[in-house]
Amino acid sequence: MTPFLNRRDLRFQLFEVLRAQDLTARERYRDHDQATFDAVLTLAADLAETHFLPHRRDTDTFEPHIVNGRVQLVPDVQKAIHAFRDAGFFSAHHDEALGGLQLPWLITQAALACFQAANIATSAYPFLTIGNANLLRAFGTPEQQEKYLRPLLEGRWFGTMALSEPHAGSGLADITTLATPRDDGTYTVAGTKMWISGGEHELSENILHLVLARTPGAPPGVKGISLFLVPRYRVTDDGRAGASNHVVLAGLNHKLGYRGTTNTLLNFGEGGDSLGELVGTLGGGLNAMFHMMNEARIGVGLGATMLGVAGYQYSLAYARERTQGRAASTRDPSSPPVPIIAHADVRRMLLAQKATVEGALALGLYAARLVDDERTADTPEERATATLLLDLLTPLAKAWPSSHVQTALDHALQILGGAGYTRDHPVEQLWRDNRLNPIHEGTNGIQGLDLLGRKVTAHGGRSLQLLAQAVTQDLAAAEGLPDVQVIRDAVRHALTTSAQALQAILTQAPDLGPDRFLANADSALEMLGGTVIGWMWLRQATVAARALPDATGPDADFYRGKLHAAQYFARFELPRVDHHARLLASADPTTYDMQDAWY
Amino acid sequence: MTPFLNRRDLRFQLFEVLRAQDLTARERYRDHDQATFDAVLTLAADLAETHFLPHRRDTDTFEPHIVNGRVQLVPDVQKAIHAFRDAGFFSAHHDEALGGLQLPWLITQAALACFQAANIATSAYPFLTIGNANLLRAFGTPEQQEKYLRPLLEGRWFGTMALSEPHAGSGLADITTLATPRDDGTYTVAGTKMWISGGEHELSENILHLVLARTPGAPPGVKGISLFLVPRYRVTDDGRAGASNHVVLAGLNHKLGYRGTTNTLLNFGEGGDSLGELVGTLGGGLNAMFHMMNEARIGVGLGATMLGVAGYQYSLAYARERTQGRAASTRDPSSPPVPIIAHADVRRMLLAQKATVEGALALGLYAARLVDDERTADTPEERATATLLLDLLTPLAKAWPSSHVQTALDHALQILGGAGYTRDHPVEQLWRDNRLNPIHEGTNGIQGLDLLGRKVTAHGGRSLQLLAQAVTQDLAAAEGLPDVQVIRDAVRHALTTSAQALQAILTQAPDLGPDRFLANADSALEMLGGTVIGWMWLRQATVAARALPDATGPDADFYRGKLHAAQYFARFELPRVDHHARLLASADPTTYDMQDAWY
Repeated sequence: MTPFLNRRDLRFQLFEVLRAQDLTARERYRDHDQATFDAVLTLAADLAETHFLPHRRDTDTFEPHIVNGRVQLVPDVQKAIHAFRDAGFFSAHHDEALGGLQLPWLITQAALACFQAANIATSAYPFLTIGNANLLRAFGTPEQQEKYLRPLLEGRWFGTMALSEPHAGSGLADITTLATPRDDGTYTVAGTKMWISGGEHELSENILHLVLARTPGAPPGVKGISLFLVPRYRVTDDGRAGASNHVVLAGLNHKLGYRGTTNTLLNFGEGGDSLGELVGTLGGGLNAMFHMMNEARIGVGLGATMLGVAGYQYSLAYARERTQGRAASTRDPSSPPVPIIAHADVRRMLLAQKATVEGALALGLYAARLVDDERTADTPEERATATLLLDLLTPLAKAWPSSHVQTALDHALQILGGAGYTRDHPVEQLWRDNRLNPIHEGTNGIQGLDLLGRKVTAHGGRSLQLLAQAVTQDLAAAEGLPDVQVIRDAVRHALTTSAQALQAILTQAPDLGPDRFLANADSALEMLGGTVIGWMWLRQATVAARALPDATGPDADFYRGKLHAAQYFARFELPRVDHHARLLASADPTTYDMQDAWY
Repeated sequence: MTPFLNRRDLRFQLFEVLRAQDLTARERYRDHDQATFDAVLTLAADLAETHFLPHRRDTDTFEPHIVNGRVQLVPDVQKAIHAFRDAGFFSAHHDEALGGLQLPWLITQAALACFQAANIATSAYPFLTIGNANLLRAFGTPEQQEKYLRPLLEGRWFGTMALSEPHAGSGLADITTLATPRDDGTYTVAGTKMWISGGEHELSENILHLVLARTPGAPPGVKGISLFLVPRYRVTDDGRAGASNHVVLAGLNHKLGYRGTTNTLLNFGEGGDSLGELVGTLGGGLNAMFHMMNEARIGVGLGATMLGVAGYQYSLAYARERTQGRAASTRDPSSPPVPIIAHADVRRMLLAQKATVEGALALGLYAARLVDDERTADTPEERATATLLLDLLTPLAKAWPSSHVQTALDHALQILGGAGYTRDHPVEQLWRDNRLNPIHEGTNGIQGLDLLGRKVTAHGGRSLQLLAQAVTQDLAAAEGLPDVQVIRDAVRHALTTSAQALQAILTQAPDLGPDRFLANADSALEMLGGTVIGWMWLRQATVAARALPDATGPDADFYRGKLHAAQYFARFELPRVDHHARLLASADPTTYDMQDAWY
């Protein structure tokens, strides 16, 4: 078996830290209990292992290519997605009335994460479709939901998000795709969209593109952008995929990794009209798209995390098997070589991975739990709190895992040594696959701007206050537990330092002006990201410390590992918060002052 | 033109910082002057651009493969190496009597670096050959030099280093390849060698493998290892490549990057005897091999640096061309989008690259200058000093660039965004290529053990004292220059902190025992590596500050860039030294205490 997942840790996060079983007290989930949640997870992990994992390498080696004008994928992709569909995962969190299982988003997200760990590229097709359906559920008219949502939930039609254009990747304000109204209320959509994942394939009967476009006479900038649903095939009156809608594949991008997911250049309106429907309001395109985008950002972070989990599990198994060298204290060269996990530097690289990926997993699932809370928490106050907190955590949940998992996978590869550098082992692919995550769905640079430029100050700073309250509450809950003291002290220090640094930069903001204020946004991201992951370790350590006295055998080892990884994070990673806080608080001018001609 | 090199910076490092022209005062180099040095550099850079750069992508796409039992490479590799040979680079630093140009190693290394920047994979064949020749020059008998050295210097025969075996990569003490003496004084060498770069190809008339092997009855461990020269083809009496020597290609490794360099599994003694000659003394194999290995380690660091230079130059050009978004202070969405170099976060990622790769280049060339000094400095004391300093700097010159350039290339890729993730641009290849460098020629983990476990304490700590003296001297030289104050203060602090941390851990060493003493060797590497690169920036900044008042136009911009990059290093990178110093000084037990069962 190729190691790719830690089921014990997933259950720990869900049922011991986040208490997912408590959600069954809510009306919407009352038909569930911990056993049904657990069965869903087991099913997901098993399907991931049997249907997604085996062709992971093939999706990379036999990259999507065009044969007779059609995109060709390895056949196992289709089979895997059918298994996913047959198990009901396309609609798992939707209403029973829509054919769903009414599972909490937390459980759904955890189940989906298993597929990401096994095969991120194949997972992308259903994941985009699920995001697409969620957007239509939120913004589609009843007619649109009737026409488009059901085939998405049944996994017969797939979805995409079509935002970028060749000249406008991060800069959505400059898109030029034009949607011209027709007499029947529909639109003709014309333009070229770039970087569209899942933009073309033969895996589904139809593909629904959610397309950002301008309308004639719309104001410049983001206010003039609306969202349109443009299917690959026009939909017949009886709801089937019909004639071509003239969305033409202009090319496939050849990527570094994530190769199994087709990434396309699409021409809308080539050789005929591409007809589309407005979703939401005119000019409200970005707002609607951000419903899917925010979900996608958390999904990117969780996907990165699961690549990191897979790399960690693989390198851990390798380190236990591979023998090489001896302890420095061993003077007898004829003694047998030791498994490399015995070397402290290998233990360091494994601990660094554990601290990163299990911290990131805790954050990704915490965010999923907030999604449930904003929808189904008992009181309006609790729901509003969840929304505000989620708003602040979203850029962190996207950026921190995507960049730090890259380092974790770097450690995994290094542990394998020369073997890690070959394609005989999966780590190099995981390392390449993840490198997309700091780029797509808003580069990490943009997440930094979003965090410091919007989220920190939004709602009068209320999100930040709520975060501080949540952390402080968990600091209090950890009081008196000696095993938790190191991480507790470090998190308290990081929280104070971060709050002071934000206060300092916000105070200077009017004098600095917006450009210089934002110049160290990356440090804000690293500072708050480190603090939040530290908090996640505090939460895990607290649960572990309380459970340890009654635990024996592998359970006791598991909790000791949690406590030790929390200490690692406190000693090796959290001190970096201070460094970034200093740069931010001092409004360090170095990057801002640098001149083009000086490079 | 694809940007891949900064010729201005190379000249700055050589003639302004390291004063290479002063070497012409030495007897050995008296026929040279700055103009001939400069001509060599120009020739190298031009040949690199015209013959090495154009097929860089092809060596990756059309990976070496076996056709009818022979390794097939893209034909441009052969042409490029012929151009390299015809220009005399195989023997450039050797005696005129051997057909060389008697160039300083510093100038040779700088010239070779141009080829690495253009195409690391093709460069590897001549580079291994040059290292092979240097070893034979140092350890070969006059007969061996006559027989083997000339064809190497003429670029007709190529060389390899064959150390690792499938079960023994880092752990050379456990190699089992056996060299059995024959009556005529030669040996039959039998065994399997793994990870042999350039181990098989049709680029040269013969391939000389330098093979580590045991002799019958030799003591276990490294003391029982000797070095043997085993040619691919046996050498005829008139010095030509003759019959097969039964070194059989058992397989090619399929790598993540660096693909143009064949990497092989070789069976020695398959289907007949592989005859070899002892090089150096019986049991002295590792000592002899380390002559080549130390040179290779500095070469790996410089190769990493040049990949970083190529990525930096490419992403810089891209950032100046690609427009996207607006400054946060621009409120008019109909204003034109700006080149992305205008965004502070892009400037940060460019500055981080500049600080990394130009700092690393300074170190690599400083090490090359020390090689000249240990051979040709005026006094025995100066020569001994150079040897001691080089001894300490070697693990740093290998590890720091190889790992930090990975981060620099990560920034380069990020600047290109989605484009960087495609194979339409070279950055993703550079990023993959460099990932080998922290692994080969001793993993960076092993460099850490070498640094803390050997080099810091060797010769009674004399190397470390000499380093501190050299830095202190440069700190004094920078006094009174206001533009240098930030980096000067930061380097002084880093030096003091590092010295104190080393003192602290060394004092505890007897109580800790060797395993725990070495547990934070990685932090020793990061701490001293950061300090040394900071020192390199201090040296560059001092030269720039003194030159700036008389400079105008692009020269003035160049010096301002140096001063600014030094400030960046002081503010953004050097503070990390404190963190690692704390871990080291406190003998932090976290990684040492971690138990296998807790992961």
